[in-house]
Amino acid sequence: MIGVFGANGFLGKHLVRRLSDDGRQVTAVARRFDDDLDTMGARSVAGDLRDRSAMRYALEGVSTVVQLMGTSTPAQGISRSTQDIQDDVIPHVAFLRECADMGVARFVFVSSGGAVYGPVSGDQSVPESHPTHPISSHGVTKLMVEHFIRLHSHLDDLEHVILRVANPFGPGQVVKAGQGLIPALLRRHADGLPVVVYGDGSAARDYVYVDDVVDALVRAIDAPGHQETTLNIGSGTPRTVMEVVAALEEVAGVNFEIEKRPERATDVDRISLNVTRARTELAWEPRVPFLEGLRRTVRAEA
Amino acid sequence: MIGVFGANGFLGKHLVRRLSDDGRQVTAVARRFDDDLDTMGARSVAGDLRDRSAMRYALEGVSTVVQLMGTSTPAQGISRSTQDIQDDVIPHVAFLRECADMGVARFVFVSSGGAVYGPVSGDQSVPESHPTHPISSHGVTKLMVEHFIRLHSHLDDLEHVILRVANPFGPGQVVKAGQGLIPALLRRHADGLPVVVYGDGSAARDYVYVDDVVDALVRAIDAPGHQETTLNIGSGTPRTVMEVVAALEEVAGVNFEIEKRPERATDVDRISLNVTRARTELAWEPRVPFLEGLRRTVRAEA
Repeated sequence: MIGVFGANGFLGKHLVRRLSDDGRQVTAVARRFDDDLDTMGARSVAGDLRDRSAMRYALEGVSTVVQLMGTSTPAQGISRSTQDIQDDVIPHVAFLRECADMGVARFVFVSSGGAVYGPVSGDQSVPESHPTHPISSHGVTKLMVEHFIRLHSHLDDLEHVILRVANPFGPGQVVKAGQGLIPALLRRHADGLPVVVYGDGSAARDYVYVDDVVDALVRAIDAPGHQETTLNIGSGTPRTVMEVVAALEEVAGVNFEIEKRPERATDVDRISLNVTRARTELAWEPRVPFLEGLRRTVRAEA
Repeated sequence: MIGVFGANGFLGKHLVRRLSDDGRQVTAVARRFDDDLDTMGARSVAGDLRDRSAMRYALEGVSTVVQLMGTSTPAQGISRSTQDIQDDVIPHVAFLRECADMGVARFVFVSSGGAVYGPVSGDQSVPESHPTHPISSHGVTKLMVEHFIRLHSHLDDLEHVILRVANPFGPGQVVKAGQGLIPALLRRHADGLPVVVYGDGSAARDYVYVDDVVDALVRAIDAPGHQETTLNIGSGTPRTVMEVVAALEEVAGVNFEIEKRPERATDVDRISLNVTRARTELAWEPRVPFLEGLRRTVRAEA
């Protein structure tokens, strides 16, 4: 049984659907549920990571955990540090111990490829060995959870794979404060509002289509022992905010109204991920080109 | 004014003495005090890192903080994770914010060169850019605090230097559970007890004499802006447990009785630190040879 924790989120729903389509047994765990998950045939459990008895119940019969639940978001900065530790890091540590106690054999964690590295010098695409100097509490939080997973894996014999996922996009992505440029563009436009761009729009991110991320997750669930267990998942190509705006205008056949606001100190300027290691370890590669991903997203949201 | 937090510990006492001898104004902050500190002429404040009002009081007039307070120790492993986060990481985050609020300009932090890197392959001495995969809760805790210092420094304009100190030794080192091989050897021998060695005694550490560490701290307090702010402080030479035992037997003119116990999973096998960066950034280098350091330690303890 595969336990998908955070099953009601953007990646979670796509993953549960894919696993169900593949005929896999799934326990879908989420804070809140909508009807979509029931129709996918998964065993569903409602619960928060901080609710230990709910997590214990959810873990019954689960041999592989995919952990997508998280509370922090990139834009919150340092004011959130203590809260992020309390609400995210500590519950993760407790959850890891529950997993070990309940006989979970494998733990797949989705970390943030955009936030854990922090500022990157030059135009290099970042390998996993790059120093990790996050400039947001969100990034530090993800990194801390990574460290505790490695620590538990070392001490408790829990196999693990950590996927540092770049900026995923695709159908069903919900607009959250400070996250998800593409759905934010579509939503603001649909609402007749200007699109907010921080700084001069030259900040570049690595966008990866959701089906490619799900494919990496499935490979991480199934792959046998790894040499390397921390793997970047991205397109390998940086795209600036203004490039994304232009591409989406082309694909959707619209013109966005832009409203520029000052840069945020917690934003990383330019990042793309080197995915050589994931190619080697998971025989994975990104298959959906950016424009094709945008087309599918626009079509699904229409 | 220089605030030394953790002034009653091994490094803290040596540092306060050195700063007082140099005629510097010092606020010495510790959980408990002994009379030594008063005689050094420092302003002394009793308080725990978790006591925010005491910390606020202690920070009055302080422009440079040297933070040596910590609650976790290497041998405690994973059972301590949640406690270490609550008792060490969260108070550090709150303390950093107090420092920024109180106008502290510079923050010097002593991290653990022995614990933050985790297992090291081969015989290399480890540079600061080496991946950090700690295998103890203590190591993860130190690393988390490092990350929050860098984050605050980035967002709050707090200058910082992080010294990843190897295994310091010297006069006045108190035997703590799981820490301090050299004082443990001397103490056990003085008590007529066998010396406990974990594993086969081939585990190697990097021992650095306390005066060299204090010298690095003083340089970190005084140095102007740095290119690199995370610096290893060690001897650069790994020494096995059995080598240390033999050297100390020679210097002290004694024979230790050895009691071997099983290895601990939270111990790192072999580590020595590459200190090239500290040489460049602080014009620092270790000056006291290992045997000379042992001689001074034995002489002081006699």
